[in-house]
Amino acid sequence: MMVKRIHHIDYVVHDLDHAVATYQKILGVAPGPREDLASRGIRAQRFRLGETFLILVEPVAPGFVRDFLEKHGEGFFHIAYEVEDIEKEAARLEAEGIGLRDKVPRRGLEGWKLVDLDPRSTCGVECQLAEPAS
Amino acid sequence: MMVKRIHHIDYVVHDLDHAVATYQKILGVAPGPREDLASRGIRAQRFRLGETFLILVEPVAPGFVRDFLEKHGEGFFHIAYEVEDIEKEAARLEAEGIGLRDKVPRRGLEGWKLVDLDPRSTCGVECQLAEPAS
Repeated sequence: MMVKRIHHIDYVVHDLDHAVATYQKILGVAPGPREDLASRGIRAQRFRLGETFLILVEPVAPGFVRDFLEKHGEGFFHIAYEVEDIEKEAARLEAEGIGLRDKVPRRGLEGWKLVDLDPRSTCGVECQLAEPAS
Repeated sequence: MMVKRIHHIDYVVHDLDHAVATYQKILGVAPGPREDLASRGIRAQRFRLGETFLILVEPVAPGFVRDFLEKHGEGFFHIAYEVEDIEKEAARLEAEGIGLRDKVPRRGLEGWKLVDLDPRSTCGVECQLAEPAS
């Protein structure tokens, strides 16, 4: 057994304040604090739903996330599967013929290690492996 | 607190057998049995990831799912937030101004009660409320 749970799901939005207010209504859950991830050109805010984070992401600088929003519009952005040893699991997927966008894990919020999968290997779904910081 | 966890996430695919084989590789988890939901014109197969089901769905008859696949291509289809009393929560959302596609809950796999939200009220994400069968 490799993937233990869904670590987080990101939605990309135009207006973070509006999206947070909307999801607070829908979910009936209080959001966490505002977070910034300059390396990705985003600001974000998240809700805890059981063992998974639902994260709302707004691009604030040019880069992959802004390009994605301009191309696809608001909505689902990606899903992250939690693993214990991301380097090992990424190597296993590569050996199985699953394409990876990141050859070395990059860092997400709170120092999570992340490796994006190539959507051509995932039936079109934007997926990533995630290893929480220890 | 209203939404307790993410009940399931659906991906829509062209070829269920291929998709199941692909996700068995990616997730390292064995899938459940094949399931059919004639009322929705689909066949499906799911993986348990912690407290959430990841469900692969292939349309086999005309209807909403086939239309969605033709319009958007393979990939993320929707996400279901688990609630305890779906009629009460749907009424609460409607009172908050969140649009609902289903005025009465419809039935999903295993008799789950489902109410789809209008993506114009959810920052573009296809979402639904789900109440597992008791």
